[in-house]
Amino acid sequence: MGKILRIDLTTQKVSESPLPEEYVKKYVGGRGIAARILYDIMKPGTDPFSPENKMVWGTGPLTGLPVQAASSGWVVVTRSPLTYTYFRNRCVSNFGIMLKKAGYDFMIIEGKAEKPTYIYINDGNVEFGDASSLWGTTTDLAQHILKEHIIRNPKAETAVIGPAGERLVRYAIVQSGTRQLGRGGIGAVMGSKNLKGVIVYGEKSIPIANEELLKELVKEQVKQLATSHGAKRMQRYGTAAIHALINQIGDYPHKNFRETFFPDHEKLDGEQRVKRTIRNAGCPNCLIMCWKYTYVKEGPYAGAWVDGPEYETFWSFGGLLGISNLDAVIYANQLADLYGIDTISAGNCIAFAMELFEKGIITKKDTDGLELTWGNENALITLVKKIAFREGIGDILAEGVKRAAEKIGKGAEYYAMHIKGLEMPGYDPRPVKAHGLAMVTSNIGGSHALGYGTQEVFGLPTPVDKYTIEGKGKLTVYNQNRLTWGECCIWCTFPTRSEWHKPDLLTKIVNAATGIDFGGWEEALKIGERVWNVERAFNVREGFDRRHDTLPERFLKEPIPSGPAKGQIFELEPLLNEYYQARGWDVATGLPTRAKLEELGLKDIADELEKMGRLAK
Amino acid sequence: MGKILRIDLTTQKVSESPLPEEYVKKYVGGRGIAARILYDIMKPGTDPFSPENKMVWGTGPLTGLPVQAASSGWVVVTRSPLTYTYFRNRCVSNFGIMLKKAGYDFMIIEGKAEKPTYIYINDGNVEFGDASSLWGTTTDLAQHILKEHIIRNPKAETAVIGPAGERLVRYAIVQSGTRQLGRGGIGAVMGSKNLKGVIVYGEKSIPIANEELLKELVKEQVKQLATSHGAKRMQRYGTAAIHALINQIGDYPHKNFRETFFPDHEKLDGEQRVKRTIRNAGCPNCLIMCWKYTYVKEGPYAGAWVDGPEYETFWSFGGLLGISNLDAVIYANQLADLYGIDTISAGNCIAFAMELFEKGIITKKDTDGLELTWGNENALITLVKKIAFREGIGDILAEGVKRAAEKIGKGAEYYAMHIKGLEMPGYDPRPVKAHGLAMVTSNIGGSHALGYGTQEVFGLPTPVDKYTIEGKGKLTVYNQNRLTWGECCIWCTFPTRSEWHKPDLLTKIVNAATGIDFGGWEEALKIGERVWNVERAFNVREGFDRRHDTLPERFLKEPIPSGPAKGQIFELEPLLNEYYQARGWDVATGLPTRAKLEELGLKDIADELEKMGRLAK
Repeated sequence: MGKILRIDLTTQKVSESPLPEEYVKKYVGGRGIAARILYDIMKPGTDPFSPENKMVWGTGPLTGLPVQAASSGWVVVTRSPLTYTYFRNRCVSNFGIMLKKAGYDFMIIEGKAEKPTYIYINDGNVEFGDASSLWGTTTDLAQHILKEHIIRNPKAETAVIGPAGERLVRYAIVQSGTRQLGRGGIGAVMGSKNLKGVIVYGEKSIPIANEELLKELVKEQVKQLATSHGAKRMQRYGTAAIHALINQIGDYPHKNFRETFFPDHEKLDGEQRVKRTIRNAGCPNCLIMCWKYTYVKEGPYAGAWVDGPEYETFWSFGGLLGISNLDAVIYANQLADLYGIDTISAGNCIAFAMELFEKGIITKKDTDGLELTWGNENALITLVKKIAFREGIGDILAEGVKRAAEKIGKGAEYYAMHIKGLEMPGYDPRPVKAHGLAMVTSNIGGSHALGYGTQEVFGLPTPVDKYTIEGKGKLTVYNQNRLTWGECCIWCTFPTRSEWHKPDLLTKIVNAATGIDFGGWEEALKIGERVWNVERAFNVREGFDRRHDTLPERFLKEPIPSGPAKGQIFELEPLLNEYYQARGWDVATGLPTRAKLEELGLKDIADELEKMGRLAK
Repeated sequence: MGKILRIDLTTQKVSESPLPEEYVKKYVGGRGIAARILYDIMKPGTDPFSPENKMVWGTGPLTGLPVQAASSGWVVVTRSPLTYTYFRNRCVSNFGIMLKKAGYDFMIIEGKAEKPTYIYINDGNVEFGDASSLWGTTTDLAQHILKEHIIRNPKAETAVIGPAGERLVRYAIVQSGTRQLGRGGIGAVMGSKNLKGVIVYGEKSIPIANEELLKELVKEQVKQLATSHGAKRMQRYGTAAIHALINQIGDYPHKNFRETFFPDHEKLDGEQRVKRTIRNAGCPNCLIMCWKYTYVKEGPYAGAWVDGPEYETFWSFGGLLGISNLDAVIYANQLADLYGIDTISAGNCIAFAMELFEKGIITKKDTDGLELTWGNENALITLVKKIAFREGIGDILAEGVKRAAEKIGKGAEYYAMHIKGLEMPGYDPRPVKAHGLAMVTSNIGGSHALGYGTQEVFGLPTPVDKYTIEGKGKLTVYNQNRLTWGECCIWCTFPTRSEWHKPDLLTKIVNAATGIDFGGWEEALKIGERVWNVERAFNVREGFDRRHDTLPERFLKEPIPSGPAKGQIFELEPLLNEYYQARGWDVATGLPTRAKLEELGLKDIADELEKMGRLAK
């Protein structure tokens, strides 16, 4: 069993405890255990920006092992300042591996440091360092100084915030190497704790229970990847592989979700990316190598580069805004990473401002003179900076579309594309019912990542009609449970959701690696369901229920005006009804039932919710 | 004795040879041995951009040792595409230490790779890698990909070129970590060889002959530094320490060397730098920590950072152009490092263009619409990029002021501030006769670094009247020999030239470290003189002599118009006469004499020059 490290920034108290065996059996690791720890240690009603908010950083049972599609995952869960829900974030830098090598599977960070601070975890030893001089720095500089000059160990791994996190931009990221904890404002939570960064180094070995068997199973993994069309496309294009497809099915949000097809989409497609890719990289051992370093060789953005952009940024800094110049997207992505803001939320905020500008709700007086017209690359680049540094209109947009709309008033709310405060990703819910329903009911707000409707979008593992409503509640529950289990083991999301690997292979690998018999696919889905219910209970405890499982009016009232999915609308109520039923929750309120919670071994949670009057009657 | 690694990029032939004992005894190491190797292996008349040009990379006897002010020096010598002279460049990144740990004291690179290539030196093993995908990348990205993704060893050290080196910008740099081989276009020589970078890793230990004695001597070094006013100032301000002083004595080139005092100089002084410094760093062990990481926290350049700027860039991107906004200087410096151009030469090229613009010799038609007015920050930033990428007017300026002036014609030559093609540094020769004379007679063209007149500028080690002509030839010979020996050992230039350390302490340290008795200060100066003569012979062999030891007309004809040094002019002829006499060379031609060369043990060189008709008659 592993260890939990607990760090209080207020008192600088550091403690260690063994990972409870019960946690491992019920939640496996990663997001599962982290969610349960968070549920247990957080007092309901805690302000995300208060010292009492807690972050749980976690690794998975496969982190650091010689497997495909799982070797470098790690997660952070906390209460999000954007959604006020439970929030989970997944990253794939080497930070998680190094945390494990330093001796820890999980790490709790709580309290608030008196002054800017970094935490240095060195092979079982924890130090607090003064980060005052690093306060304000971009993420590249902060990481460079920490590694090369403060601890002088370039092999250490770092996770830091940029100027945006310090300024509590509600969608500030954590940058780790060239990768991100992107969504939900985890970086702002760090900023609120005066925590500039964490640097970790260790040399402990990571045990494997059944090494020979694992080797055999990984060989099978390699075989299965070799025959996957999706894996091959991802090898070539990274996540941009899907850009053309999402347009073809009319699911691509354009002009702030007003339309769902971007006429210029070919200028942003995968081949455009290949032209600019100078290096494929990825997690240790992985054959896919989906990290694509892109570089702009000529023109006004020459010299810009980024490990990315991912599909979401192709879209949020591209087609969503009517921008079709990939070079501009790359440059804006680079700045977002350096300053430390989430590209999905930032793109949404800019699209929101552009639509308000078009409608005359805001004018050049409000935008510091910027012409916020669709397709204006300069506006994108300027606003990325203004948001991160909270300058002028950027100060309002740094609050996220929900709060910005409240501040602006004049009907701005209609144009704020978010679910529970989290800006929406690059999929319109209207033409993809399960995929949309997964976003509506996601435990972290408007994210596609928790229950991706691969059957609708890719026809994987088996095609399902996108527009059909019936059965989509049940399908969504499957998709959510599947990916939740995936993030307990911290499998890469792509092979898991599209089932490039057969599910039973994945369960065998986890059993071989840990030496614990977690069972097969059915048991895996049950674990996913358990964790989903813990997360839901967290939110329910904070007051969330059916009323919040909704979408911006646009999706409920405006049929898609044109393109391949013309006429589609999102049928929220019937979809929700079936979903709650499939979840075994109360359909009227969306609250969990005692029966379901007890079935999942969560009697203590049922008891607590009941006491609070938040259990289904 | 160490080893020489020889790498031919054309044939990919790699060989090793022991470092000849005679080289060590006569030239110590570093610049001395590198210069002699270059002299021996280069055919006169070799085009700097041809495969036949050779680069000699070298470490010193103290590189990697636990000493003050010498632990990380390394040099590269080659024939410069800017000056067509011998050229030496010194850097202080950890690359040199790592080269030594990989088993090599010197490395010769010659030939031309068929396609973009990197060289990987791994503990005695040499590999050639395809750098096609890295071609075009900025220096940060190239170093990151090489370390993290190609060889996957973040402890390796790198030296790379940026887009400018690939485009043969004649003053392209080599970037190593956050430091540079700045002057003379070494990066362009790499570019001409299709060599994107060198990456090196090794774990060999670096021997110390007399460790106990060395420890004692280094203690004395520390004591001497502790009592040095200059050392303390450099600790606080880095090289920007001298910005105010150079203005006070009216030696600060302003508006392309037309004036020598910058009225706004306080906006660029050391305290301004301290405000933006987030980290002091330096060579391993060094107490001074003169590397100052500066960061712009707010305003239009927020997010910009650089390891620097050094004094020269404060000046070349600042006061030389009438720019007093340090934030703009920092941003332009960052871009120059990323794209890979020398800030001194680039600043000069921009100042040259600004003066031509003022005089109407070029207009907006020639400048791609840019208003090249003094103080125009935007012009600076735009031109840095245009030069590096050879866009528009940048393509002409990328040739350096000498060649740009020839192309432009119309009297532009008068405004081209260079010596032998090398753009001039941040000192006006007119008010500092020895310091100026050192630049005129420098073996690499317009550089202050080879014979700095510290007696005139700082009064160190003992003050000398700046304006006096008599004795300055002799003083310059001393200063040049002193620093040349310094670069054979690769002492840091600052303590050596200002004698913060007593010279005899430095010689004792070299003797203790190597176990070779090189003698004391007198013998050190003799070694410096020997190396200087080898370098001069290289240039003489290429056709250089007294005719080339000159300055732009401005310094000879225009008395300084105002400020503390008003009225001063540079008295070239009497200064040169005394200098040649002190060198023991022929005064009429500036050619070395047989007597001097034989006195220095360079009979073979005397014989060769005589055969070519280039020995003093």
